[in-house]
Amino acid sequence: MTVRALRLLDWKSEPELVEVPRPEPGPGQVVIRVGAAGVCHSDLHLMHDFSPGMLPWEPPFTLGHENAGWVHALGNGVTGLEIGQPVAVYGPWGCGTCARCRLGIDTYCEDQANAPVPSGGGGLGLDGGMAEFMLVPDARHLVPLPDGLDPLDAASLTDAGLTPYHAVRRSWPKLVPGATAVVIGVGGLGHIGVQILKATTAARVVAVDTRDAALRLALDLGADHVVPAGDDAAAEIRSYTAGRGADVVLDFVGSDSTLALAASTSRSLGDLTIVGIGGGTLPVSFFGVPYEVSVQTTYWGTRPELVEVLDLGARGLVKTSQSVYGLDQALRAYQDLREGKIEGRAVVTP
Amino acid sequence: MTVRALRLLDWKSEPELVEVPRPEPGPGQVVIRVGAAGVCHSDLHLMHDFSPGMLPWEPPFTLGHENAGWVHALGNGVTGLEIGQPVAVYGPWGCGTCARCRLGIDTYCEDQANAPVPSGGGGLGLDGGMAEFMLVPDARHLVPLPDGLDPLDAASLTDAGLTPYHAVRRSWPKLVPGATAVVIGVGGLGHIGVQILKATTAARVVAVDTRDAALRLALDLGADHVVPAGDDAAAEIRSYTAGRGADVVLDFVGSDSTLALAASTSRSLGDLTIVGIGGGTLPVSFFGVPYEVSVQTTYWGTRPELVEVLDLGARGLVKTSQSVYGLDQALRAYQDLREGKIEGRAVVTP
Amino acid sequence: MTVRALRLLDWKSEPELVEVPRPEPGPGQVVIRVGAAGVCHSDLHLMHDFSPGMLPWEPPFTLGHENAGWVHALGNGVTGLEIGQPVAVYGPWGCGTCARCRLGIDTYCEDQANAPVPSGGGGLGLDGGMAEFMLVPDARHLVPLPDGLDPLDAASLTDAGLTPYHAVRRSWPKLVPGATAVVIGVGGLGHIGVQILKATTAARVVAVDTRDAALRLALDLGADHVVPAGDDAAAEIRSYTAGRGADVVLDFVGSDSTLALAASTSRSLGDLTIVGIGGGTLPVSFFGVPYEVSVQTTYWGTRPELVEVLDLGARGLVKTSQSVYGLDQALRAYQDLREGKIEGRAVVTP
Amino acid sequence: MTVRALRLLDWKSEPELVEVPRPEPGPGQVVIRVGAAGVCHSDLHLMHDFSPGMLPWEPPFTLGHENAGWVHALGNGVTGLEIGQPVAVYGPWGCGTCARCRLGIDTYCEDQANAPVPSGGGGLGLDGGMAEFMLVPDARHLVPLPDGLDPLDAASLTDAGLTPYHAVRRSWPKLVPGATAVVIGVGGLGHIGVQILKATTAARVVAVDTRDAALRLALDLGADHVVPAGDDAAAEIRSYTAGRGADVVLDFVGSDSTLALAASTSRSLGDLTIVGIGGGTLPVSFFGVPYEVSVQTTYWGTRPELVEVLDLGARGLVKTSQSVYGLDQALRAYQDLREGKIEGRAVVTP
Repeated sequence: MTVRALRLLDWKSEPELVEVPRPEPGPGQVVIRVGAAGVCHSDLHLMHDFSPGMLPWEPPFTLGHENAGWVHALGNGVTGLEIGQPVAVYGPWGCGTCARCRLGIDTYCEDQANAPVPSGGGGLGLDGGMAEFMLVPDARHLVPLPDGLDPLDAASLTDAGLTPYHAVRRSWPKLVPGATAVVIGVGGLGHIGVQILKATTAARVVAVDTRDAALRLALDLGADHVVPAGDDAAAEIRSYTAGRGADVVLDFVGSDSTLALAASTSRSLGDLTIVGIGGGTLPVSFFGVPYEVSVQTTYWGTRPELVEVLDLGARGLVKTSQSVYGLDQALRAYQDLREGKIEGRAVVTP
Repeated sequence: MTVRALRLLDWKSEPELVEVPRPEPGPGQVVIRVGAAGVCHSDLHLMHDFSPGMLPWEPPFTLGHENAGWVHALGNGVTGLEIGQPVAVYGPWGCGTCARCRLGIDTYCEDQANAPVPSGGGGLGLDGGMAEFMLVPDARHLVPLPDGLDPLDAASLTDAGLTPYHAVRRSWPKLVPGATAVVIGVGGLGHIGVQILKATTAARVVAVDTRDAALRLALDLGADHVVPAGDDAAAEIRSYTAGRGADVVLDFVGSDSTLALAASTSRSLGDLTIVGIGGGTLPVSFFGVPYEVSVQTTYWGTRPELVEVLDLGARGLVKTSQSVYGLDQALRAYQDLREGKIEGRAVVTP
Repeated sequence: MTVRALRLLDWKSEPELVEVPRPEPGPGQVVIRVGAAGVCHSDLHLMHDFSPGMLPWEPPFTLGHENAGWVHALGNGVTGLEIGQPVAVYGPWGCGTCARCRLGIDTYCEDQANAPVPSGGGGLGLDGGMAEFMLVPDARHLVPLPDGLDPLDAASLTDAGLTPYHAVRRSWPKLVPGATAVVIGVGGLGHIGVQILKATTAARVVAVDTRDAALRLALDLGADHVVPAGDDAAAEIRSYTAGRGADVVLDFVGSDSTLALAASTSRSLGDLTIVGIGGGTLPVSFFGVPYEVSVQTTYWGTRPELVEVLDLGARGLVKTSQSVYGLDQALRAYQDLREGKIEGRAVVTP
Repeated sequence: MTVRALRLLDWKSEPELVEVPRPEPGPGQVVIRVGAAGVCHSDLHLMHDFSPGMLPWEPPFTLGHENAGWVHALGNGVTGLEIGQPVAVYGPWGCGTCARCRLGIDTYCEDQANAPVPSGGGGLGLDGGMAEFMLVPDARHLVPLPDGLDPLDAASLTDAGLTPYHAVRRSWPKLVPGATAVVIGVGGLGHIGVQILKATTAARVVAVDTRDAALRLALDLGADHVVPAGDDAAAEIRSYTAGRGADVVLDFVGSDSTLALAASTSRSLGDLTIVGIGGGTLPVSFFGVPYEVSVQTTYWGTRPELVEVLDLGARGLVKTSQSVYGLDQALRAYQDLREGKIEGRAVVTP
């Protein structure tokens, strides 16, 4: 018995919609019927920017690393899940036994050699959710959906929601009333970041983007202030904060220029978090960044955090504006994404 | 030169509106022109429930421990304040040099013998704000008002706002999305507690009260769920939390029965905070309270927290519905308070 | 094939050394060859103080809830462990899928109905380590021993070490240089608590006990000050802390009188943690305990904490003075324990 | 009446021992009789590397920014201090009224324009402790010495102790048993950093230096492991940590090469703190530093932290090996420092 799947068959190629055997769950595994799979920019990189040996894994595999659906079949020994139950898939799949994985921090698994695939997951070296069915190799990666959230809305929260959530959450102690958070880049992740900041803190939120439409979206989502990217942005943010600078800066772009902006608008003792993989570098030196600003990258998020971000989604505190494509339109979805035609987030519903 | 002041002249008596000398600031001191002084239940206790020797200080003194106004005169050596500037008065006045006071935690001053008056402040043993002018014995107790907040709105935030703010803020780490906070008693402090919870966290808020009007107010202020006090309250809260119990319970009443309710609805690892001075006792034993629920009282709040709560007020995230009385109506204000005629908070504006 | 095991066959009876079938591991399970099993006071309660229906589980079962040994047989699907590898057994066994269990906080499992046995574990309703072999129903409960620690030394750390470790660790933020921790009861847990405090903080440690030998032991283990239990204890501790009181009080006894001592020696904003199940009650009221002292029980500890306490053991930072008994002497071990003849901790080595 | 003082009279000159008027305390100020003033490398920079306009302040001023002594004269309004009382001087002097200064975080004062001198203090633009008497412009900068610590031992703790203390303390949550801290550079600050790590945490401490003597000193002070700086250092540290890397790296050098070493030995989620002002730059990019390593500078420390580090000093948990010079030998002390002849820390005792 076969099912359709959108697979990347080779590096530097377009994915193809092909028939593959329907997966069966082994012991401890689960097969889900996919409800939605997010269409992510990073997939475009996968299609075009890699060649053999650059990553710890190779094609072919089914795309789709932002997934939600319904439990379809349970492997031996799986407890706590029921057939038909709606679930989200926690995307990063680590070894399961290192100290990090035991806390649901598979993103930073320290024994990648014993992960299903090193530094990957479903849609990232292993078969993902751009298919009618998807094999999840360990039941612990499934998070039951709370009432009020269906797989269509949950899928993109597993990445485009979880990633900014992790970045915001780690900075909560600095986001007190009177503090200011700056979001650089109001795109797929940033526009959710604005909502998470508003829902979980009373800090002021300033959004920065080059595009007017993105700034308008930020205001609609509750941003307290918006600033067009450009030469005056740093001065304007410093003025908005009465000269102090921003307590937390979240850079969802990560280019040289956004990182420089981030550093120049940071307040001493603040956080400067690099979420966007824009290829930039921030030179950190003793007098080059305000005293004791913590500079760090963050990558995706943890399983316990996914539970929390799904709760925000179920209660309408975080919303994704979504464009929905069928599985046979998936290629067009990627094309639309590439051409900048997608507002918010696109999902494929097999 | 004299000014009018509402003074408690003796224990077990009604306060009187009398003429007193206008205060002059000594070195490091400030005189403010009072904009508003809050009318607090605890003043009724002061009038009626004490006798000589019961407290570390005695009448006569001017009432009013929730104060805001404008800087009127600066003593020698005071910097950082300007005549006419609107300010709130941080109410608890400690020694100023112990480790606690140095962090603005005068509430828990550990050298009360060297405070202006032990365990007191303006309106609590020393002259308070129910007067045209008020002497503040150390400039550090003044907090400039942020734009958008005037003394009339700020006064009650210094106590009825600061007290619940402190209680909520210390529990932030437990108030994650998916968590539940229970507010017992939606009165002068509790109704602000609901707003603070909603503004600063994404936790669900459940309000409990005996009065329908209070429950309706809680819903208006954003409570996710309300529960009438009574025999079924514990079961209903446990059901609302899927059996887990509440992560944080804030008891703004503090009677035997509310404390028992608090304990029976707490989740293991939660916080049970006693804010209300209702005379109750909670017997804590190994199997009498869920594992590792932290039980504590809180008293008022800190100066840095007052800065934060004023920010919430200035941005409209915390509002007090206020009844305003003139200084010559102050006695009637207390009478109305005693008779339950006041909704929200009453303030006197000299 | 049978093995010997010390089993409690009925409530209100002495355990018996009997032959039982050698356990075989099912999928996900592990059988260990027991290296040592701790002899714990709570076992005496199990033998004598319960009757049918009082606990969620019933005899017969093999005693021993503090266990370490070597991996003997792996069930299907178990990864990350090798035959012969020395391991400690994390004792509390929860459902494995609730939010608490997923973080290794089985102690506070919120789905006890789906635990192997509700609120129990090996030696507590299920077969424990007083046997040549022991079945561990989920591989996640095994913690590999670090170099330098063998099962004989590790066994009692899983409970008599883990319990005080959890109680101390949660109070670290208050145990800064200049702070004082009070340990009430320098017995099996308390004498390890003193060592953990000294190893992991720079706080001063004050030990309280009724017995001179216990106080001498505390001094040997690094306590900065010892105080005989009695009427003067509270005053002496307050004097030692320059009147402030203790930042953290750990009560390893938990009787009415030790709890009263704990409350009267606590510093405002401190922690008062009830570890000992001595049947006492602390009445908490607004003016009965210093402001904002957090009062809580703690029960055992978490799996990640067990990893940490084993590290302390392996490096000699925490030592247990042990009396070793063979399996056929186990009954005598319990008798010696009952008669107060055991110094430190007794372990049985099958 | 005059007193002797070692003053920097001009940029790019040697300081001179001259007579100056004895300071008198104004309101809120204190004059101390100096017990000891530390001889710091940064003074050598002051003498040689600056010219007019480079810093916000200019000569002449008395050197010495690590000071302790005895209260000699109190200005009007100063309370809580007694003549003759031994005190340490908290060195960074901010505005006193911004949010940071109110918490004793003068290092990061946000209103430097209203500080006694912008970004300076005694010995840094204002008269310091290389004199018989020193004026402290605000009594809040004095910290009474605990029993067991005299000014001679306290002086260098105010900087060479406080700076590493702040850097270590902020990383405590990551320094659990099983974690590893790396100290790069076992000089005047680093050798105290090793002691602070050992006294306040149970983390393993690895020290890195180019000099054998420094590595031997680190071992004497309790380091668990030492690694010679060089090409193999990163591999050796990674091996020592079983491949994980160090949870906290404290770079007391701050050159390009030490920062590169720090980054290459950091564990994901760790801290990389730049304490040394060695002129280096660390390029931070998404894949250039392990995930979520927090990179930050730290500068000096806070007043509450000074209280804590003095406690460690008084109890012998932190010791400085000191060379003592008279005031008329102060120039030779700086010469010895320049020539590398001083082990530990030199202090001048007027």
